[in-house]
Amino acid sequence: MRYLIKFSYDGTLFHGFQYQEGFRTVQECLERAATHINNNKKVNIVCSGRTDKGVHALGQIAHLDLEVNITPYKLKRALNSNLPDDIHVIEAIEVKDDFHSRYAVISKTYQYRINMKEYNPLRRHYCYQHNYPLDVFKMKEAIQYFKGTHDFRAFVTENKEKKNCIRTIFEVSIGEDQDELVITFKGNGFLRYQVRNMVGILIKVGTGKIEAKEVKEILDSKVRGKHGCCAPAEGLCLLEVNYHN
Amino acid sequence: MRYLIKFSYDGTLFHGFQYQEGFRTVQECLERAATHINNNKKVNIVCSGRTDKGVHALGQIAHLDLEVNITPYKLKRALNSNLPDDIHVIEAIEVKDDFHSRYAVISKTYQYRINMKEYNPLRRHYCYQHNYPLDVFKMKEAIQYFKGTHDFRAFVTENKEKKNCIRTIFEVSIGEDQDELVITFKGNGFLRYQVRNMVGILIKVGTGKIEAKEVKEILDSKVRGKHGCCAPAEGLCLLEVNYHN
Repeated sequence: MRYLIKFSYDGTLFHGFQYQEGFRTVQECLERAATHINNNKKVNIVCSGRTDKGVHALGQIAHLDLEVNITPYKLKRALNSNLPDDIHVIEAIEVKDDFHSRYAVISKTYQYRINMKEYNPLRRHYCYQHNYPLDVFKMKEAIQYFKGTHDFRAFVTENKEKKNCIRTIFEVSIGEDQDELVITFKGNGFLRYQVRNMVGILIKVGTGKIEAKEVKEILDSKVRGKHGCCAPAEGLCLLEVNYHN
Repeated sequence: MRYLIKFSYDGTLFHGFQYQEGFRTVQECLERAATHINNNKKVNIVCSGRTDKGVHALGQIAHLDLEVNITPYKLKRALNSNLPDDIHVIEAIEVKDDFHSRYAVISKTYQYRINMKEYNPLRRHYCYQHNYPLDVFKMKEAIQYFKGTHDFRAFVTENKEKKNCIRTIFEVSIGEDQDELVITFKGNGFLRYQVRNMVGILIKVGTGKIEAKEVKEILDSKVRGKHGCCAPAEGLCLLEVNYHN
């Protein structure tokens, strides 16, 4: 039986989502818990897309196949009782055998948080501390250039010749939540480090190092040049993954 | 020269505020940083009142005496560069030599956070997870009994015969902040575990284990009986300490 699980994790103490020999990863913890439930027959967790070291998730999605018969509600409970306190399964659903958590994605929403006010130790793992003021008005102008369908090659950190860097961003926004600036992107998919690189450029706009309209030039250049700067992992959170239905 | 400092800390990795041989405490970290600035002459940090293991602070106050001449702004910066990332000095002010951070307190505000919704790993150190619904309406009725001047003997965990357990609570409130219930107490002072014991009783009211009006009976009894239950440390935060002027 195939199940979809929706889960959250605090990325602080994980070496990212994906399994890595010798490191604590979200995938490893989930697979260990699921394998235990599956009478110790190895279970593979296939997620909607990996997140990097230090990045959080509040609505990550994965699928898994189990040989044992278990209701979704009991699966949720059984997983949670076998998971550490920095991962939590929010929901489990039975899905068709051909459902695929990565291929079937329609959209994903990422949120990036920046604190421009006084440093708050209670928030140190969940937002990027920026000690200088940012011109939010200019950032709001600049973020609009990311909307739509573009070749995001200029915002990929790795210099591999990716066959396809074309992605569509449906929605962008910059808002405030108490002391934090909250930057949101909703798109059909994101390349590795793309969100953090886009935020890095927006911060450059906010500090006046580059003009808002230069964001368009960088995007159009399709070259990752010296403008590059990747915003730190702790500010990033995968909020939501959407599928058909 | 005497200075007042306002500071915040994440209580998660501290064994409380007060110095304890062999444990990591907020006082020890602050004294080490201040002593370093004071040309290695031992500095004592006198705070407005200790907080227990796991309890947070966003506006704790202390005073300290330094032999070196340093502006408040430089003191703030120097302390922060010598402190770990879970303590942060928000402000330093020069005060008169007879100012005392504990004796001069007029009021303190504590906040307690409870999550009644889905467990959120990103909030696990900053709120108490309560997996069953609470009747907030009844809790709002019950909390009113704490307002005013009372002998709070029934809400002290230790069974020492405290000479004076009379305290005044000026303001109480129960509100909501996103998924969390936020309980606030402002008073002229609080006994050890008093806030967590009051919250523990409010949770009993919220779950229907006792009636709202029984809170008054317990308070009037001045006896800490079997009703006692101390809400976990992680939900508690010292928000503010107020002085004359």
